[in-house]
Amino acid sequence: MAARVGVLGATGAVGQRLIQLLEPHPEFEIAALTASESSAGKSYRQAAKWRVDSPIPDDVAEMTVTETDPDAVPDDVDLLFSSLPSSVGEKVEPGFCEAGYVVSSNSSNGRMDDDIPLVIPEVNAEHIDLLEVQRDERGWDGAMVKNPNCSTITFVPTLAALEEYGLEKVHVATLQAVSGAGYDGVSSMEIIDNAIPYIGSEEDKLETESRKLLGSFDGAELSHNSVEVAASCNRIPTIDGHLENVWVETEEDLTPDEAAEAMESYPSIDLPSSPDQLIHVFDDPDRPQPRMDRTLGDGMAIAAGGLRESTFDLQYNCLAHNTIRGAAGASVLNGELLLEQGYI
Amino acid sequence: MAARVGVLGATGAVGQRLIQLLEPHPEFEIAALTASESSAGKSYRQAAKWRVDSPIPDDVAEMTVTETDPDAVPDDVDLLFSSLPSSVGEKVEPGFCEAGYVVSSNSSNGRMDDDIPLVIPEVNAEHIDLLEVQRDERGWDGAMVKNPNCSTITFVPTLAALEEYGLEKVHVATLQAVSGAGYDGVSSMEIIDNAIPYIGSEEDKLETESRKLLGSFDGAELSHNSVEVAASCNRIPTIDGHLENVWVETEEDLTPDEAAEAMESYPSIDLPSSPDQLIHVFDDPDRPQPRMDRTLGDGMAIAAGGLRESTFDLQYNCLAHNTIRGAAGASVLNGELLLEQGYI
Amino acid sequence: MAARVGVLGATGAVGQRLIQLLEPHPEFEIAALTASESSAGKSYRQAAKWRVDSPIPDDVAEMTVTETDPDAVPDDVDLLFSSLPSSVGEKVEPGFCEAGYVVSSNSSNGRMDDDIPLVIPEVNAEHIDLLEVQRDERGWDGAMVKNPNCSTITFVPTLAALEEYGLEKVHVATLQAVSGAGYDGVSSMEIIDNAIPYIGSEEDKLETESRKLLGSFDGAELSHNSVEVAASCNRIPTIDGHLENVWVETEEDLTPDEAAEAMESYPSIDLPSSPDQLIHVFDDPDRPQPRMDRTLGDGMAIAAGGLRESTFDLQYNCLAHNTIRGAAGASVLNGELLLEQGYI
Amino acid sequence: MAARVGVLGATGAVGQRLIQLLEPHPEFEIAALTASESSAGKSYRQAAKWRVDSPIPDDVAEMTVTETDPDAVPDDVDLLFSSLPSSVGEKVEPGFCEAGYVVSSNSSNGRMDDDIPLVIPEVNAEHIDLLEVQRDERGWDGAMVKNPNCSTITFVPTLAALEEYGLEKVHVATLQAVSGAGYDGVSSMEIIDNAIPYIGSEEDKLETESRKLLGSFDGAELSHNSVEVAASCNRIPTIDGHLENVWVETEEDLTPDEAAEAMESYPSIDLPSSPDQLIHVFDDPDRPQPRMDRTLGDGMAIAAGGLRESTFDLQYNCLAHNTIRGAAGASVLNGELLLEQGYI
Repeated sequence: MAARVGVLGATGAVGQRLIQLLEPHPEFEIAALTASESSAGKSYRQAAKWRVDSPIPDDVAEMTVTETDPDAVPDDVDLLFSSLPSSVGEKVEPGFCEAGYVVSSNSSNGRMDDDIPLVIPEVNAEHIDLLEVQRDERGWDGAMVKNPNCSTITFVPTLAALEEYGLEKVHVATLQAVSGAGYDGVSSMEIIDNAIPYIGSEEDKLETESRKLLGSFDGAELSHNSVEVAASCNRIPTIDGHLENVWVETEEDLTPDEAAEAMESYPSIDLPSSPDQLIHVFDDPDRPQPRMDRTLGDGMAIAAGGLRESTFDLQYNCLAHNTIRGAAGASVLNGELLLEQGYI
Repeated sequence: MAARVGVLGATGAVGQRLIQLLEPHPEFEIAALTASESSAGKSYRQAAKWRVDSPIPDDVAEMTVTETDPDAVPDDVDLLFSSLPSSVGEKVEPGFCEAGYVVSSNSSNGRMDDDIPLVIPEVNAEHIDLLEVQRDERGWDGAMVKNPNCSTITFVPTLAALEEYGLEKVHVATLQAVSGAGYDGVSSMEIIDNAIPYIGSEEDKLETESRKLLGSFDGAELSHNSVEVAASCNRIPTIDGHLENVWVETEEDLTPDEAAEAMESYPSIDLPSSPDQLIHVFDDPDRPQPRMDRTLGDGMAIAAGGLRESTFDLQYNCLAHNTIRGAAGASVLNGELLLEQGYI
Repeated sequence: MAARVGVLGATGAVGQRLIQLLEPHPEFEIAALTASESSAGKSYRQAAKWRVDSPIPDDVAEMTVTETDPDAVPDDVDLLFSSLPSSVGEKVEPGFCEAGYVVSSNSSNGRMDDDIPLVIPEVNAEHIDLLEVQRDERGWDGAMVKNPNCSTITFVPTLAALEEYGLEKVHVATLQAVSGAGYDGVSSMEIIDNAIPYIGSEEDKLETESRKLLGSFDGAELSHNSVEVAASCNRIPTIDGHLENVWVETEEDLTPDEAAEAMESYPSIDLPSSPDQLIHVFDDPDRPQPRMDRTLGDGMAIAAGGLRESTFDLQYNCLAHNTIRGAAGASVLNGELLLEQGYI
Repeated sequence: MAARVGVLGATGAVGQRLIQLLEPHPEFEIAALTASESSAGKSYRQAAKWRVDSPIPDDVAEMTVTETDPDAVPDDVDLLFSSLPSSVGEKVEPGFCEAGYVVSSNSSNGRMDDDIPLVIPEVNAEHIDLLEVQRDERGWDGAMVKNPNCSTITFVPTLAALEEYGLEKVHVATLQAVSGAGYDGVSSMEIIDNAIPYIGSEEDKLETESRKLLGSFDGAELSHNSVEVAASCNRIPTIDGHLENVWVETEEDLTPDEAAEAMESYPSIDLPSSPDQLIHVFDDPDRPQPRMDRTLGDGMAIAAGGLRESTFDLQYNCLAHNTIRGAAGASVLNGELLLEQGYI
């Protein structure tokens, strides 16, 4: 029987992607949709300006949107996916956890808290057991798991694949799609025939979340990885798909061929939304490209390419679909992990 | 009296920019236009598909295009600007030098040759005297000076400004405009809603030309700078303006404020096409941006911004107009230097 | 058992779409791929720069490409799909028909010939029997059917739906995607931040092909429809999907609601590639939009919207995927019709 | 001595263009800047996110922004340029006129009022004297003149040039730039790789404003022209420049050559912002194009091209810079007319 799930912040860009992914999902059944006060009481069709490129599912369209409040969500909902703006998430997510809901959240608030697991299942599924610590410390009946930022998710799996060589220093420059900022996040006048070399707080997320994700959990405490990351973030005129240029310095020598082999053979995980092969490495030096490769593995795979010796370290490019692998799909995958691990 | 000049490869993207810059130039008078065999004998209006956003100058439009051959260019032409494809430049440029013409070339062939000066006048004007060595060695009556690649020109002035701190390692990721590949270099199907993390030979140009430009010339021999540069190049959907993310490691400590001060005060040179201030540093962290800032200083200035401490070095962004400062304007400026230094 | 089919001009934009559609097709099996002389002898993977956004099918990738010559195509191939440039199609297509092959062609040559059926199966399937006349007149063992131009296919089904009201005058302005010109047809410098109000010969195609498609066939001769069409064609910076603004004057009064009803209820045809519903009419006045609606019905449906009373006639917008419904899918659908009608 | 002028709504897209045009203007001196309550009291530099591609003028940057209220504007200001949202303009513009200010407004409110002159100086300068009627009727010390909508301004001058042939019916399809909707009017996710066939109320503006502009004024009353116009409006991914496809039916026969001659020879007006030649007709059928031709005549000229016989009428394309000729420049030009005609 499918778990009953809800979506907090269901009308936004990530909320719409969540609905697109959850509606046909074998393990989940959409049972609640919340949004801001002005949408409460409306049908989802009325409340959301649907902009995903597949039609709005009929049954979801007729559901009534409620306020984002624990009292407005039915008690028999098992799991909530949250794509709230972080300023809202900060205020309301803890209340849901106190009220007993398990929350898989894409919002950035709390991601770096010591007792909140930040998880990419293929990379650090074992961090999920930090929830025991969380429940002890916070006294929650519910629980909270976070997925990282879309630009972090893009490059961390490739680093994880190289970890055995001893990660030391990473430089990463990002070319990020406009959908990462939400439907109204980037105006057309800002970005047509242009690029913006700044995304607020984004560089810090790549630099800190990556260390937490690659850290180790001993059952009681989480140690962050010692890798040092320097990020430079750019917005460019693409719809979906974050492309990243990466340089890695490792303790042990690492050739491009060894790196390609490590990435290609890096294991996926046996969960419905995880692709058969997590990282695809292209031989053609001009790939991956956002429009061509963002839908690999139904948007859940990581594409890599251009592996080459740099002047002083290893250099490559990687790409992921920022609103699927980097946001909605990441939350859904964490929901699947929570279900498999018995947390719901 | 104005020097009589010619343009080799006058119908291409850089050729058209050259004409746009040379036509109103106080020191130069366009006296010869060459192109491929199929254009020879036609009026320039017929031969060129004019695509610059100012009207084609009337007098130039009526000039007759000749073949790119020393015999086809009038003897009283003093200086030739070359924007030939490098495969053509390689074959025909030396012949013009032998025949006594002084050539200011934007073509990539020969840029790294020991006796060919590669010059950005504000950075290494003194390298021009390598022409004495060149004439000795090659027995040319004419001479050949090169300007660097458009993506090299964008970041080298900022490095020059920081040189006193001891440049050690540089990482640079580029976001390059489509005009850099010529009018038909990038098809619309390749780049709309996309980015391409590969530009053939481009990374090597940034890595090697920068060392030559920042090298020292003792009157006899040129020593390259010891800075190590690792570049990663991307094509994005912008028309003009290359944006670059730079990380610099220096021997001496260097704060963002010191770097900004060094860039802002880096001297320009007293030549007609050189801007009053070479490097503009923006305080606003989301600048420079290609569409907003590429025409600074009539397209001849360098824009910098986002100076900040990285995890382990200094980090900033810079931008230049790739077909003006990075190509046609660079050649014209070298022509002005040749004139001022008495080489023509 | 599947019919064995070949693709003439397999490496181009439409050729790649043909392969994408034919590879999983229930009735067709790809048995031959042809291209220009320079590709002959290479594997398809080597010969084609694959740019469709699904991976190249493995078995097709390993097939050997032959020259576009009847002698180079196996005799047991039943049906050829042609996406040759019209200048090439003109020269070589008749030879294939003489040699006994049935050809479903997307190339524009010959479309307006009296004895060549120009067919959109949902609109004028009965024109296929013009092939009897064709074989009589030309003495071909094979046969040739054409699909119309991509911009013609977009609006003709909506006119067909309104035909009972008596079509008199049609004005149509098109906003066409760059893929309609092939991979290298529109350079990025021509179209970024721009639009081009001219596509060579395109207006004539809309104006004449529409009359032939809406004409009647009495078993011996084809009469063109008397509707008068005036077209104005524009290229805009979209990848796929032609959008058209249409004004229609009809003999009988026609309200927007009646027009919507006529379009929605216009019948599809029972062939594998034809969508269940041919024309979808949107209520939301800002639809259809290329990126949102081009994949309706797997790219084979027509989207319409904005039905409203104009100052003096009926006004609406329509959209179709130009390389699927408007080209490769149109040819495949004609192939299905040929099979169903016993021509192969 | 320069007239002292103010800008109502100075921080928006058109407000910034107004400042860019007024700052170097020979007849006007900027003496007041107003914006919404949240900006009042700030320096203009702080209040406006400057996004025009020339630097913000230093002296304007330091001016203090006031509320948009007659009491907040100095009495010695002679003329106000208004680029307020129409919902705001409706409420506050009349108050300024009552308080004695002469207002040249780009806002759409009141444009179709019987006693408000809607003026393009080169087309219907004589309508300005409707201000006498206005003052009589409204008892204003001040006065209000409007310029038409950006998409109206683009095609009306070409119609005016053809008026002697007897205008009957006009079809016009527009391809409009995103700047027409203001800085945040069109999100990047709406328009990249897309087009939107709907702009609220826009079609009505083209259809009605054109008749008023082409109407005649007998000194007491304004009669609208009898031409019937049907418009279809589209938003496309261009920054600046509205391109329009026009079909015209005239009483008298009209060849493309006659139309071209009529447009080329249509007189300009002797005011500082009016170009020497109002309408430029291109021979090349693929012009005008937005990025190539929008800056003709410093953005104040109209570009036309593609004049050809349609199936049943005359057909052509035209283009104007929507935020200069179509908005800020239009208001400035009306201000110049007011000054020349002694209304200020």
